[in-house]
Amino acid sequence: MKARVPASTSNLGPGYDVLGLALRRYLEVEVTPAERLVISAEGEGADLPQDGSHLAAEIVRSVLGHDHVAIAVSSTIPVGRGLGSSASLAVAAAAAAGASSPFGVASAVDGHAENAAASAFGGLVAATVIDGTPIARRLPLDPGLGYVVLVPDRHLPTKLARSLLPTVIPLGDAVHNLGRMGLLVAGLADRRLLTPAAGEDRLHQGPRTALFPEAPELLDALHRGGATIACWSGAGPTLLAICAEASAVAGVEAAAWHAMSQLGVEGDVTAIEPDLEGLVVSA
Amino acid sequence: MKARVPASTSNLGPGYDVLGLALRRYLEVEVTPAERLVISAEGEGADLPQDGSHLAAEIVRSVLGHDHVAIAVSSTIPVGRGLGSSASLAVAAAAAAGASSPFGVASAVDGHAENAAASAFGGLVAATVIDGTPIARRLPLDPGLGYVVLVPDRHLPTKLARSLLPTVIPLGDAVHNLGRMGLLVAGLADRRLLTPAAGEDRLHQGPRTALFPEAPELLDALHRGGATIACWSGAGPTLLAICAEASAVAGVEAAAWHAMSQLGVEGDVTAIEPDLEGLVVSA
Repeated sequence: MKARVPASTSNLGPGYDVLGLALRRYLEVEVTPAERLVISAEGEGADLPQDGSHLAAEIVRSVLGHDHVAIAVSSTIPVGRGLGSSASLAVAAAAAAGASSPFGVASAVDGHAENAAASAFGGLVAATVIDGTPIARRLPLDPGLGYVVLVPDRHLPTKLARSLLPTVIPLGDAVHNLGRMGLLVAGLADRRLLTPAAGEDRLHQGPRTALFPEAPELLDALHRGGATIACWSGAGPTLLAICAEASAVAGVEAAAWHAMSQLGVEGDVTAIEPDLEGLVVSA
Repeated sequence: MKARVPASTSNLGPGYDVLGLALRRYLEVEVTPAERLVISAEGEGADLPQDGSHLAAEIVRSVLGHDHVAIAVSSTIPVGRGLGSSASLAVAAAAAAGASSPFGVASAVDGHAENAAASAFGGLVAATVIDGTPIARRLPLDPGLGYVVLVPDRHLPTKLARSLLPTVIPLGDAVHNLGRMGLLVAGLADRRLLTPAAGEDRLHQGPRTALFPEAPELLDALHRGGATIACWSGAGPTLLAICAEASAVAGVEAAAWHAMSQLGVEGDVTAIEPDLEGLVVSA
């Protein structure tokens, strides 16, 4: 079977470990019976070791109980950039292996329910794990919003990014993010209500800046360029801009290129659309 | 001028200091010119000192710059029970005094933007304070939900309830509440998606239980009686049950009466509807 899933961005500022949004970059996995495990990969991630340690092989084994399969992976989602590539791979591999809940398998193995939910279901989601069981809900998304991703040529492993976070935080910071997340959910449902403060975070972006010191200036540039929301995408280093007016996208792209050039940050800037389909399986 | 506003419940479990919901109990304030301050009150809160220290007088002075008025307050919202009586009074008094933003005045004086927003705008809201300015957004509310409030005959001052909260918390508890709040917002918008875990809190209900030790057993009873969500209303001691099926309301009421009787908790239990109008001003 063949499975195609979108990339995803997560956190979206205040919604740390909870909000996910599927984006139109895709990863495809095909699983076919074979005498022994064969992995082939093209596109993004093709440089990873193509052996039993590959995440797709791990997932397929957990679904089938064996790995007598050929796994073909084709991806346009850059690895380790904060665009949910591992969750996308996990969802697609689980689906291509015939799992009844690719979202559940991917969340359990990859550990990011919000990315897995976005890739599996598409659109905007809230997801979390309740007593070991991942659970996700779609949230409304205004079709008139515009999006830009700024993708630096840097690899920022999620585990390292996560290790920088404090284990205890002020109660006021938790309330800060709860409040902003409430405003954000309302603003993403109706872009006329979207306000810049709805993208503010006090839980994860600050500590992670040590790994990407240019991030605050780049986020400022996205705002000044016309983005209503500017935040880290997942654990970074990709930054996400959301525009209440889609007509602002070109200005945000230009501002992002200019700021990257001034700060000497190599990478790519691209307007992107949300994916609303999620996982698509074909025989 | 005369202003009528609804009561409100806040927090709704995970949405600490952020979510508010207007409920159909009402408070009315009429402000008319007078030679000197005269306050009259009837119904709930009529036992408070009727002098310049009354919250309504404080609000009217802050709006008009003087208190040469007669203020008549009539309320069916019990005081100090977690039903937002002071926010309701503040919104109504500000509106009856002619304030351009009763929500803003009430948030500034009372300090509870989520209660003030629910009373001012009606329905379900997310509200917070950004750089000193209160901001609120309506969130969708499924009209098929059912609600029960369990209102103990106890006065639980919000300031005392707040003093019990820790100043620092584990990051994981913040993520816990963010995740549940995401599920809750989705479930309140579409009751078919409402799940009991969406009402779970780790920030405020636990520490406050010292002031209301019977609360956990009463919340359990509400769940067993058929409530999908059972949580504290504001800082308590009122408890709120939300039923995904309105037909479950009678069973929840019965379970609440039974549990209160068994635990020796005096008070009232009543089914209640959300208010969707918020503030209504008449000349």
